[in-house]
Amino acid sequence: MNDQKIWTAALIVIGDEILSGRTQDKNIAQVASWLNVQGIRLAEVRVVADDMDHIAEAVNILRARNDYLFTTGGIGPTHDDITVDAVARALGVDVVIHPTARAILEKYYTTRGGLNEGRLRMARVPAGAELIENRMSGAPGIRIGNCYLMAGVPHITAGMLDALTGTLQGGAPLLSATLGAWAPESEIAGILGDTEKAHESCVIGSYPFFRSGTVGANFVVRSTDAHDLENCRAELKAALEAAGYEVTDGGI
Amino acid sequence: MNDQKIWTAALIVIGDEILSGRTQDKNIAQVASWLNVQGIRLAEVRVVADDMDHIAEAVNILRARNDYLFTTGGIGPTHDDITVDAVARALGVDVVIHPTARAILEKYYTTRGGLNEGRLRMARVPAGAELIENRMSGAPGIRIGNCYLMAGVPHITAGMLDALTGTLQGGAPLLSATLGAWAPESEIAGILGDTEKAHESCVIGSYPFFRSGTVGANFVVRSTDAHDLENCRAELKAALEAAGYEVTDGGI
Repeated sequence: MNDQKIWTAALIVIGDEILSGRTQDKNIAQVASWLNVQGIRLAEVRVVADDMDHIAEAVNILRARNDYLFTTGGIGPTHDDITVDAVARALGVDVVIHPTARAILEKYYTTRGGLNEGRLRMARVPAGAELIENRMSGAPGIRIGNCYLMAGVPHITAGMLDALTGTLQGGAPLLSATLGAWAPESEIAGILGDTEKAHESCVIGSYPFFRSGTVGANFVVRSTDAHDLENCRAELKAALEAAGYEVTDGGI
Repeated sequence: MNDQKIWTAALIVIGDEILSGRTQDKNIAQVASWLNVQGIRLAEVRVVADDMDHIAEAVNILRARNDYLFTTGGIGPTHDDITVDAVARALGVDVVIHPTARAILEKYYTTRGGLNEGRLRMARVPAGAELIENRMSGAPGIRIGNCYLMAGVPHITAGMLDALTGTLQGGAPLLSATLGAWAPESEIAGILGDTEKAHESCVIGSYPFFRSGTVGANFVVRSTDAHDLENCRAELKAALEAAGYEVTDGGI
């Protein structure tokens, strides 16, 4: 099991509104969770400004070293929507009007005032691209090579991810098991490290929290190997209990 | 005003829990908002896994091309907390025990079971580092050169940012003004682009939303020049009203 290829993806979150602190990003967690189900690991994320060179640089580095590259944001109708241009520049291809995207937009805007220059921008794609269905509104997402360009508005992004479900090749999904204890992680750090070392396919994450004035932590064991995961989980639970902590399955 | 140096910062969010989708990041927005008040612009963010090489690579690229580099996460007591080691490797310095950090931890844990191996990890710093006060719990943050290593738990991060307030050199704070209208952004994209072009120091962001089945957008004008910002805001408002939209100051 451990020799299986691990499929990875990177995500570029495009938008000044995230970097200015105005908008709280929701797409990182959403894309990460969806990728896990596809058997693909989110390996790295970059948040970049609405800047052609910065986007193009990130696209070329990340698409080369991951199986998939996703972007969110910057495919709308306004002047600050430059993702298509930046990706086309990164790939060295022209920007063209996709006839199907144009037809989709014409139909969508028939009862909404008709196509105009801004709306037609949303039919622009890097030459050679295919469309990703938009189940929420008009403008489709875009796939070119291993790059998937999606909307930035989270519920539209969700619809596009839904349309892509099952279409990407992935490996064994990453499984996880969570244990929780009212234990300061600084007291059980040794147990965590030792248990992880004993299970080669497993990674243990430790996530402290503070509630009602008391310190605790949740411990997440992750592995693509269900058998090893269960062994690791059971050993960690036993070790924490042996150290005097009450352990909650599923986390606190 | 426009010739003033623009101070920039980068942020590295360190942690498998963000990349796995388990935890929704809150530090990007928090650090971004805080930086704005210091007159520093958040220029780029990377989310990287708990991996020495990936962290070190990001540290060296981002500290070189920004005035400041912040990291969140990975400075706790457990085996997956490797930020100090990764930054020391990036900077080519040793990891040492900081005597003041050790004293802080000894005092903090006097009534909490005493120092142990895991807790002592939190006194480790790259050689030459200073401490950042932790107003919430024991372990301090770390400054070395232009790198600021902070906790990952958002309320502890907040306390460290608070301790740093006013200590970093910045430029003129980025100012912003928000207008809102029940306008599909695809209808007023031209107005936005033209108004931005007419005000060199200003950037206009457009943030669509969907509520109660109706489409609208907020438009955020940003500039370090208060005079130009006000002119741009007023012109944008007038242009939107001339196009038949009711405009709300402060956004919808």
